[in-house]
Amino acid sequence: MNQYPEQIKILIEKFSRWPGLGPKSAERTVFYLLKQNKQSLDEIINNITKLKNDIKICDQCFNISTNNPCPICQDQKRDNSTICVVAEPQDVLVFEKTDEYRGVYHVLGGLIMPAQNITPDQLKIKELLERIKDNQTKEIILATNPDLEGETTAMYITELLKNNPVKITRLAKGLPIGSTIEYADEITLSSALKGRQQVK
Amino acid sequence: MNQYPEQIKILIEKFSRWPGLGPKSAERTVFYLLKQNKQSLDEIINNITKLKNDIKICDQCFNISTNNPCPICQDQKRDNSTICVVAEPQDVLVFEKTDEYRGVYHVLGGLIMPAQNITPDQLKIKELLERIKDNQTKEIILATNPDLEGETTAMYITELLKNNPVKITRLAKGLPIGSTIEYADEITLSSALKGRQQVK
Repeated sequence: MNQYPEQIKILIEKFSRWPGLGPKSAERTVFYLLKQNKQSLDEIINNITKLKNDIKICDQCFNISTNNPCPICQDQKRDNSTICVVAEPQDVLVFEKTDEYRGVYHVLGGLIMPAQNITPDQLKIKELLERIKDNQTKEIILATNPDLEGETTAMYITELLKNNPVKITRLAKGLPIGSTIEYADEITLSSALKGRQQVK
Repeated sequence: MNQYPEQIKILIEKFSRWPGLGPKSAERTVFYLLKQNKQSLDEIINNITKLKNDIKICDQCFNISTNNPCPICQDQKRDNSTICVVAEPQDVLVFEKTDEYRGVYHVLGGLIMPAQNITPDQLKIKELLERIKDNQTKEIILATNPDLEGETTAMYITELLKNNPVKITRLAKGLPIGSTIEYADEITLSSALKGRQQVK
């Protein structure tokens, strides 16, 4: 025996593809599962099965939810004329936690990454264009990350909408709250300078 | 919505307990699974189920295998008089890969860690004592890690066997092959010095 049984090898290989798990931690995970009793393992299997069966993608904003449309899209008190465009469902939660935003969302399901073969047609961009066709939308906030992929995707969508009267905004770039100017990187500081706001 | 649906929260909490996955990577893992199609997810579930059903623990050495006893214990060509005692099944594979060792193994299933409530009676130590009762065993190699837990466990087993004629050895401690003395830590260097071997 100088290699693991097939069942273990397959699962190590599968887990290695999960985000945040390398080959070594995938191996540790398999042995962790082997140490669990049947009941714990059945619970995990049950949870994974439920995940796929119970969690739905909202037809309107493509956020995840147990309902379709999702509670945000169904909420009459939300401002339907403002759409916050984000990359992933996780981003929606982050915005909701600020308790500041009253508009609706549009989840792209990723960002344009040519190197990883993620092209615009794999994202929910045409669905966004479709959604604003009725001219009810006043503002689109392109809330993608301030990095290469996020900026590329934002620029791509901006370009597509250049002849559409809708207002398009990006989140402010600047110093994070609580940070120290001394340790700020130059690009952030330069953005903070460009975006400086009058206080008096 | 300022928190995830219950199904997602439960699975994030479960995955957080897996080795190498923190709360943030557990979250990413759940969203990774949500993006998979039904077939991939069924495959994962199937693989986890198979893992528990097909993988057995060898009655003799407590290594994992698809057979019980495991191929190593069944192999007539192996030297049954030498037992290499290791903490985990993963360690067996590492020894087998050296292609040097011809004896058999004994997997403890962990190391003594009082802080984590792992006491000697949870390890396969009494099974080891039972196994050497027939006096066929000539040497026990205590191949636990050269760290606090590994040394503690080795010392504990050595103490238990102090009146038994069996020879007990530990792996050599010294400089790793390919390393630089300049960067060796003092404890390793001091071990290497103590264990120095005559070459002429």
